[in-house]
Order: sequence, then C-alpha cells, then structure tokens
Amino acid sequence: MAQTTFEEISAADFFYRNRDIAGFTNPSRAIFAAVRELVENSLDAAESLKIPPDVYVRLSYEGEASAETQIYRLRVEDNGIGIPARHIPSAFGQVLFGSKYKLKQQRGTFGLGGKMAILYGQITTHQPAYITSSTEMSKIYMYKLMIDIQRNRPLILDRKVLINKEQWRGTIVEFSLEGDYFRAMPKLLDYFKQTAMVNPYANLTFVDPKGRLYRFTRVTKEMPVPPKETKPHPYGVDVELLQRLIQITPYKNMLEFLKNHFHRVGEITAQKFLVFSNLSPSKNPKKLTHEEIVRLMHMLKKYEEFLPPDASCLSPLGEDLLKAGVLKELKPEFVVVHQRKPATYAGHPFIVEVGLAYGGEIPKRGNFIIYRFANRIPLLYDEASDVSVRVITAMNWRRYKVSPDMPVAILVHICSTKVPYKTVGKEFIADRPEVRREIANGLREVARQIQHFMSKREHVDRERKRLGVFSKYLPKIAQFSTQLAGKQKPPDIEKLLASVKKYGAEEA
Amino acid sequence: MAQTTFEEISAADFFYRNRDIAGFTNPSRAIFAAVRELVENSLDAAESLKIPPDVYVRLSYEGEASAETQIYRLRVEDNGIGIPARHIPSAFGQVLFGSKYKLKQQRGTFGLGGKMAILYGQITTHQPAYITSSTEMSKIYMYKLMIDIQRNRPLILDRKVLINKEQWRGTIVEFSLEGDYFRAMPKLLDYFKQTAMVNPYANLTFVDPKGRLYRFTRVTKEMPVPPKETKPHPYGVDVELLQRLIQITPYKNMLEFLKNHFHRVGEITAQKFLVFSNLSPSKNPKKLTHEEIVRLMHMLKKYEEFLPPDASCLSPLGEDLLKAGVLKELKPEFVVVHQRKPATYAGHPFIVEVGLAYGGEIPKRGNFIIYRFANRIPLLYDEASDVSVRVITAMNWRRYKVSPDMPVAILVHICSTKVPYKTVGKEFIADRPEVRREIANGLREVARQIQHFMSKREHVDRERKRLGVFSKYLPKIAQFSTQLAGKQKPPDIEKLLASVKKYGAEEA
Repeated sequence: MAQTTFEEISAADFFYRNRDIAGFTNPSRAIFAAVRELVENSLDAAESLKIPPDVYVRLSYEGEASAETQIYRLRVEDNGIGIPARHIPSAFGQVLFGSKYKLKQQRGTFGLGGKMAILYGQITTHQPAYITSSTEMSKIYMYKLMIDIQRNRPLILDRKVLINKEQWRGTIVEFSLEGDYFRAMPKLLDYFKQTAMVNPYANLTFVDPKGRLYRFTRVTKEMPVPPKETKPHPYGVDVELLQRLIQITPYKNMLEFLKNHFHRVGEITAQKFLVFSNLSPSKNPKKLTHEEIVRLMHMLKKYEEFLPPDASCLSPLGEDLLKAGVLKELKPEFVVVHQRKPATYAGHPFIVEVGLAYGGEIPKRGNFIIYRFANRIPLLYDEASDVSVRVITAMNWRRYKVSPDMPVAILVHICSTKVPYKTVGKEFIADRPEVRREIANGLREVARQIQHFMSKREHVDRERKRLGVFSKYLPKIAQFSTQLAGKQKPPDIEKLLASVKKYGAEEA
Repeated sequence: MAQTTFEEISAADFFYRNRDIAGFTNPSRAIFAAVRELVENSLDAAESLKIPPDVYVRLSYEGEASAETQIYRLRVEDNGIGIPARHIPSAFGQVLFGSKYKLKQQRGTFGLGGKMAILYGQITTHQPAYITSSTEMSKIYMYKLMIDIQRNRPLILDRKVLINKEQWRGTIVEFSLEGDYFRAMPKLLDYFKQTAMVNPYANLTFVDPKGRLYRFTRVTKEMPVPPKETKPHPYGVDVELLQRLIQITPYKNMLEFLKNHFHRVGEITAQKFLVFSNLSPSKNPKKLTHEEIVRLMHMLKKYEEFLPPDASCLSPLGEDLLKAGVLKELKPEFVVVHQRKPATYAGHPFIVEVGLAYGGEIPKRGNFIIYRFANRIPLLYDEASDVSVRVITAMNWRRYKVSPDMPVAILVHICSTKVPYKTVGKEFIADRPEVRREIANGLREVARQIQHFMSKREHVDRERKRLGVFSKYLPKIAQFSTQLAGKQKPPDIEKLLASVKKYGAEEA
C-alpha cells in the first residue's frame, strides 16, 4: 500500500520553499524586494521616533554568479529608533518575530520582509548578515548572524560591543545576495522616485553598483501627525480575538471589559450595548461560555450605534502634501486631489486619498498612468489585479470628459492599520467592497473637478474663437460704417473688444 | 522615548492575521476556498492510492450570522488513502504540518489549505471540527478538535475508535463556518464543472444548502500515470538544500553523494561533473567548507551537460483526455490541443498543455474565454495577473486569423512538482520566464493549427461559391449548346460538376 509521510516545517522553511509569495520570484524581483523591504523598515524606524528619515542604500558588485546573475552586497543604513541588543538576532534571524504586529498604520505588516531578504541572501551566497544597531544608549551592538531555516532560529556567529561616543542612533544591515540589478534597475529607480513623492520629508540616497548616486532630498521637515496604536473596533472582532482579550483582561466585569479593550466604546456606549445584547454589566468576562462568546461576537457586529473608527491611528498624507508631491514629480498642467473621510472594512479603519493630474509633462500613453500607494509605500508590480486599477478600468470616464488617450495620471493612496494585501510581497490590494467603494467615490470626486476644468477649457476655447471673429470683423465694420457715415475717424472699437474679451488674453 | 515592543507569533497566528493571502478574503471567497481546499485534498488522497476519486461535498444551512452572511455546515467525504490515527490532529489542527512537502506533482503544495478552512470556521463560529478517517485497517478514528492558534497546536476535545466492519477507507471532514454561499455559488459551480473537465475519472457530488444535487460523473476509470516522487535537479539547488543533503547523507564521498541525491545524475555524469568542477570524487561531502558548498552550487548551475528533468514526476493529462474534456464541456466546432515537452524552471520540471476551441456552443463575448489549470485544478480568481493571460494578451492573434470577437476558448494547463503560485490561495501563477516561454510556444502551435483550419474554411467557402457559379451556369450552357447543335438531349453535366466539387457536399 502507498505510504504517506507527514512532517512539520518551520515558518522560515515555509517561506524558503515558497519565496514567490513573498516577492522573491526571480533574481530581478529579489533585488527589488530586498531593497524595498529594508528601506520600508528604515522609514518605519525613523517615523516611530517622529524624526525625518535619512536612509542610505548602497548596492555594490561582488562577483559573477551565473550568465545572468551577479552577487551584490547590499547595505541599508538609517537614523531610526534602533533595536535593543537582545532583540537584534531574532528581529533579523527569525521569521514571524517582530514589532509590527500592532493595530497601527505601518509600512511593514507581516514582520517578514527583512528576514526574507536576509534568508534569500543566505541561500544564494551562503554569507552571513551583519547587523549594527544602537538605540542612542552608550553602546553600539554588532551581530554577525545566519538563519537556521529548519528550526527558524538565528545563529549568532559573532557579536561585538562598541562604545557609542558620538551618540549615534539607527540600524545598519549589510549582507550579500544574488540578483539581477540590470533588470531590476528601472523598477528600483521608480520605487525610489515614488517613495520620495509620498515621503517628501525623507532623505533617500541610493548608490548603485556602477557607483552612480541617486539623491532624493527632503523638501520639508514637516511630517504628518504620527499614527497612534489603537484598540480593535467592535465591528472587526472574531471569536479568536474575543478569547484572547478574555484571557489577558484584568477587568472583572463586562462593562469594564468593553470600555477598556475596544475602540469607540465608552461608559455610555458600553451600557447601551449591554442592554441591547441582554448581558449583565457585572458578569465576569472570564465566565462566558463558548456559546456566549459567539453570541457576543454576533451582537458586537449587529449593534448599529458604535461610532466608526476614528482616524487617530491613521496618518494620511493630506491634500497639501499629496498635491505638492504630484506637482513636484509629475509637473502637470492641472492637478486635483481629494481625501476621503475615514471608513472601515472588517473593523479596520482606512482612508483613501486620490489625485488626478492632467497635461504638462505627463506623457500621452494611450492609457492612464496609475500610481498606487499603501501606507506611504509605492506598489509597482501586478497592477492588473489591484483594486484601484479595477475601479479605474470600470469607471465611465467619458462622462467626465476624460479618456485614456489624454495625458492623465491617477494616484490612489490607501492608508490603514491593516492594508488588505493579497500577497506577502505587498504587490497589490484585495478587492474588498468597502475599499472599492471609497476609491470609486474618491475618483468620482476628482473626476468631477477635472470635468469642470475640461468644461472651462472648452468654454475658453469657444470664447477665444468668438473673440477671433470679433477682432477680425469689428475693425472692418467700423471702417465701413465710418465711410458710410462720411466721417473721418472710425469709432474706438477697443472698448467694445475688451467687453467681449473674457478669456484669452493671459492664456493666449 | 518611544518604546518598541517585540513579539513572536506562531505560523497559525500569522495566517489568522493575514487570511487574505490564503484566499479567505471575504465571506464569499471563504466558502469557495474552504470547499476547494478540501476537495483538492480529497482528490490527492485518492490519486495517491491510484484509485478513481469519489468526493462528496455537502453544504447545509445552519443559521443566520448577519444581514449578509450565514452559518453553514460543510462536509467533505472521500475514498482516499486515509490518515493514520496519530497524525489526524496535526494534519487538521496544525499549520505547516502535512504530507505535501515533497518533490511530486500534487494539487496541494502549502500544507495549509485544509487547516485554514478549519481555522476560518473556528474563528467565525467557534465550533470544533470533526474528522473521521480510516486507512482500511480494522479501526475508524473520529476526532473532535479545535486549533490553539497562538501556539499552533491541535486541541483534541474528543476521540472515538470504531470497529471498521465494512473495511471503509477514506476521510470525512465536517465543520461549521460563516460565509455567503449565494455570492459564491456561480464560482463554486464553475469550480466543480472545470474540476470535472480535467479530472474525467473522478466522481464529484455536491449538495448545496437548498438541497440541490449537482453530480459530475466519471466518464472513464482510466487515470493518468501517477507521478513519482523525484530528487532535486542540480539546476535547482541552493546552498540551503545542499547543506540539508550533506547533513542527512549516509554517503562518504562526493561521487556517491551526487549519484544518490540528485535527479539525472548517474555514475558517468557525476564523474564528468567532478572533473569539470575540479572536485575529488573521494572527498567526504561532510568535510566541504562553506566556500566549497557555495562553489559547488554555482558549478552545478554552470555545468551544461545535465539532462533536463524527466517527466516521471509529472502527470499531465495528455492530449486525448484534454481533447475529450474540452469536447464534453464546451461542445465546440473545432478543437486543437498540444502538449509541450517537459521543461524546467529553477530546477523544477514542468509540462504545459494547451487547447484552443472554436465555434459550436462557445459564445462570442468580445474576448477570449480562458480556462486556467494547474496540476489538474482550475484557477478561477485574479485572472488578469496570471502568466497565461499575459501571454494570451501579448500574442498577435490576427496573424493566425483569430480575433477576440470570435467564439474562441483557450485552455492552459501547467503541471509541475512546484507550481509557481503567487499567492497561498493558489489564485494565479507567477510570470517566470521559462514558464512564459513554454506557454507562448504551446499557444503558437495551436494557433498555427487553428490558422490552418481557418484558411481551410476560407478555401471551402471559396470553393462553395465557385461550385455555386458552375452549378448555376453549367446547365444553361449545356442546354444552349444542345439547342445550338440542334441536338435533343443535353450532355451529362453531372460528371463535370463532380470534378470541380471538391468541398461543399457534406458540409453544405
């Protein structure tokens, strides 16, 4: 008889076997993914300290690997919060260990990217990674480590402690990996450019393997209000979450339990909800039966009077920054931006920001140029499956006097405590109905504004034509009438011309 | 100063937090994903025994959950190999534990789907899952279990042992979950239909919540040759894999090591390779330094004389079965199929099969109808990002006299020991260059055949017109000539007509 063998694999082993799902599909994507994951960690690390990020990326050539790929050394340096010494090995050498498992808007969400980059480097070059970090304390810690993939544990090969004389704070990650920079280059430069566009307060420096320097200098030190960590919203809970809260709660009755563990639930709301769900305020949450927990979950979802999540845990760019970014990078003739009010899907708050730019230096391509962002990072791959692209494709643009053969760029930014990515590689966003609706509404708003602009332009064109006719014939009519009346001097037609001249002068 | 807290989460917790990436995006997708994951496990379980699968799926209504969703009970029953009693709890209650981590063509690859279904059921209904299984031994085992998500361990709530009087063999999984069957229905029925199309030797039965019975009966008991488990091909190895092999190898010299652990490496090839890479055949693999392992990996990739992987680990459908499936389900006027030779990406062997069907009952939709399959399962979501769709879109079909406004259906089947899925939910396939090339070549081949068919049709049309002209004027000419010649009986023109009548009679 056929025999089936069973085995258990570690989380690191899972991602080692399935690196496609984490974005490390081929040598070119691998370079791209490694850089972006580390840059995004660096941006998060600086922002969590509320200081403008300085991120330095250097990719240098180390040798030939095969006909198509090379070995590169990647170094990413930041001025972020730093990592406490005892956490450094696991933060870089253990998959599913990290500081990103919080209800807060962050670029990273999976606690996976940095480790995947190092893991990929290790399996292609077998070199250890070097991590240097300081939290501005008196010491700098340096680790040389590899990942024990089968056990999902860091292997510490060396550890040094230096005196931090200059009060340096930040993290430096350095390791070797196989890749194809030549193919990755266009996307990678695009990535830096677009990252600069939505992070105008960051300094990004990139030195490529040929020694070329790319600098994206901050245009402001002003940063958006940093997001706060939040509690779960009642509409987003499931049984598992309720059970975890019940397990850890220090509160002995339902009233306190609800008030203290949920977003948007205060004394009065909690009381009303308990009446609605027919639960005693004095009941000990730890005494709830399985059935009561399931019922509580359904009741939390059914109760219609919870306020929607507030946006303090979100940090959108804001219309001004967005507009500035678009103007700076795209140099259009006209730009409209719009920020939607906070909304929620499955209890996760999110905000959609959209922009539409027309003309100027935007090229005509036969289709819209689409920029997609999520929590201030650009999304560059698998565009066709993204919810934004689907919404854009489905929209009736003709209605707004816009068509794909015009020079039009569309920008969509989604920020959320939990961006519904479809892939661990954060390539595109799932088609959640609530998200889709917000994007569609945002786009309709900017479309209406662009329509207004287009109508105005048509009107200007008509006026200009009309004025052309007037200015052509009026002098002749004036001259003819003068002759007819037997006068010498024709009447002054300048005033008359000016009175019909509403547009055209400054725009001509 | 801001404080960063670090934590470790389990693999189950990771997928609980990120169910979008496993396909459980919303209540409708969740129903779809749960059914398909369990059906695919069942098909694998029967095929590994080389017996035609009988899979019974029942979804029944249990109650209202919210305005849009219901609670359903899902039961999936098969006649597969069964699961040894000691493995049942982990096989269903522990993420990243399973029998799918092998170099062999299987539907499942992540060892995740079944557990995700149960996990999703648990967090939406808080009900345990019931697993019944027997490997045809004297006993049947029944487990009632839940998943401890934070620890990623099964929680056994109950266990029963029954006497297996009737020598039953197979597995039954039953649990409750929240979902939206109404929305999932079209995709789910499509899923069963397409699964039946590429598994014509399987019986599939589905009873939906309204008690409607859908039966897909096998048309043959003939099954494709089952795939064999294979060893890694030298072109696909990385340092991690080499190290694992070195760790477990019982062989004491490089010659034996290479011969016994790699696919397509025999005595002579191993010797030649060792000369090429300047390694001593008697060297003990366990004595290789880090640098030597890295060099060995590069050498394995550089050596050009390894044969490509053979296809014994693959089990394509074959042109006959494919054609039969298409004819049965689509009823076209004309169908061409083509199977490519085995190819390889990153050391993983794969075979592409394509089909193109025209006319008959295929509707005109303004674009091609595309069917995507991988290891004999249909892929129904996120079509736009799939490599097959990209290839189809990029192809110059006009050249082959085919255009999207014709009634054309295109089918692509990829089978591999490792299908390069982009998502854990197995929605679509990554754009690997080698895979892309094979698909393109396959499609060109069927396109040429369809072009031939189209040209022939045009020719037939022309001939028919020509014949029309002949048959119209020839009798008149005959009659006129007869009169002119003063004869009574016109000559027999039937022979003449027959001589120009190459087409048309049977097709008219």
